[in-house]
Amino acid sequence: MEKHFEDIYKEKLPFWTKLTDTEKHTLCTTSSVVGYKKGTNIHNASECTGMILVQKGCLRAYMLSETGKEITLYRIYEGDMCVMTASCALTSITFDVFVDAEEDSDCYLIGGSAFASVCTNNPYAKIFALEMAASRFSDVMWVMQQILFMSFDKRLAIFILDEIAKTGSDTINLTHEQIAKYMGSAREVVSRMLKYFSTEGIVESSRKGVKVIDKKKLRELAL
Amino acid sequence: MEKHFEDIYKEKLPFWTKLTDTEKHTLCTTSSVVGYKKGTNIHNASECTGMILVQKGCLRAYMLSETGKEITLYRIYEGDMCVMTASCALTSITFDVFVDAEEDSDCYLIGGSAFASVCTNNPYAKIFALEMAASRFSDVMWVMQQILFMSFDKRLAIFILDEIAKTGSDTINLTHEQIAKYMGSAREVVSRMLKYFSTEGIVESSRKGVKVIDKKKLRELAL
Repeated sequence: MEKHFEDIYKEKLPFWTKLTDTEKHTLCTTSSVVGYKKGTNIHNASECTGMILVQKGCLRAYMLSETGKEITLYRIYEGDMCVMTASCALTSITFDVFVDAEEDSDCYLIGGSAFASVCTNNPYAKIFALEMAASRFSDVMWVMQQILFMSFDKRLAIFILDEIAKTGSDTINLTHEQIAKYMGSAREVVSRMLKYFSTEGIVESSRKGVKVIDKKKLRELAL
Repeated sequence: MEKHFEDIYKEKLPFWTKLTDTEKHTLCTTSSVVGYKKGTNIHNASECTGMILVQKGCLRAYMLSETGKEITLYRIYEGDMCVMTASCALTSITFDVFVDAEEDSDCYLIGGSAFASVCTNNPYAKIFALEMAASRFSDVMWVMQQILFMSFDKRLAIFILDEIAKTGSDTINLTHEQIAKYMGSAREVVSRMLKYFSTEGIVESSRKGVKVIDKKKLRELAL
């Protein structure tokens, strides 16, 4: 089993060659393969669950208010990793994140305290963990932009609804570039938002155009 | 002058002893002392302004919408540092932050590309920069919690208490417009809530600012 983890980590962890044999051994012997049923809570606030690598499925990270309101921060897809669940390795991170399995998922899990001890002693492991956190910071800022300055998801939803009302079909034959032009925005912004709409199961987006899958959800966005 | 910077950095930068003499020299020779007038914009989006150390005064970091709406993310006080303004040293950070001088401020500034090159070569400098970013991530998540989950009366109470704690007086010399800007809200919303606070005998509000009358009640609102 240890050999199996080593093969995975060799490929996935860019700092692997900078580890001592003892450090490699520590990470492998505290690793496990865990299966989570859709909807299961995997990581709770300030616990130190460990470093997660998604082998199959999809996880969702979110913040939670006292009243139970959730805000999705980012998703962890097949092949992706998450260090925010190894909070003891990231002492500068002082807020709470929750993670659920969004689909039936199989994950590799490196024990939290083992991962933290390796990060303490090995600067390359530490840099890796902090860079992963910084890139999640970028994800979260994007969500924050969307929510606080809103409008763009709403504007795009309204635009799509207007277009399908006009054509009487559920498909818009416009490229992202053209949509951006009509909306006075940039192609990247449109593409990113359509990608988000796709992950939420609202539309299917291809190079040729946009197909509406869930009109009800789209209408709710436009409110 | 180089000696002067070296004395400052020796005390302020925890990775200083891990630098080579060449790296120390690089940081010192690209350093400058800069004075900013209150209200000046210091850092603009994805520029690589450099690492800032506030010697006197206070800076404010914020995000900006296309329509000019601002959300304050954090403040950089006397003795504090900011690496988010050295974005070329933090490639995992892909969002834009703006920084203004909130008061007349004197800062030490380490050139962005020099700081980035030291971070690339020296893992301890890199860890320092990333840890600073991670701790700003925590600041921003706190702001996000405030905005997304809290009721507005509570947020305004906390804002007023923070301001009077900072200035050491019972009066805030900010217009409703300015308060709204700092809180990422609208002037009407702030005015309405301050009117409510006034009728409750908690504050006295005028065009020039806000005077706290009943700090105990304000604290209760902030809980």
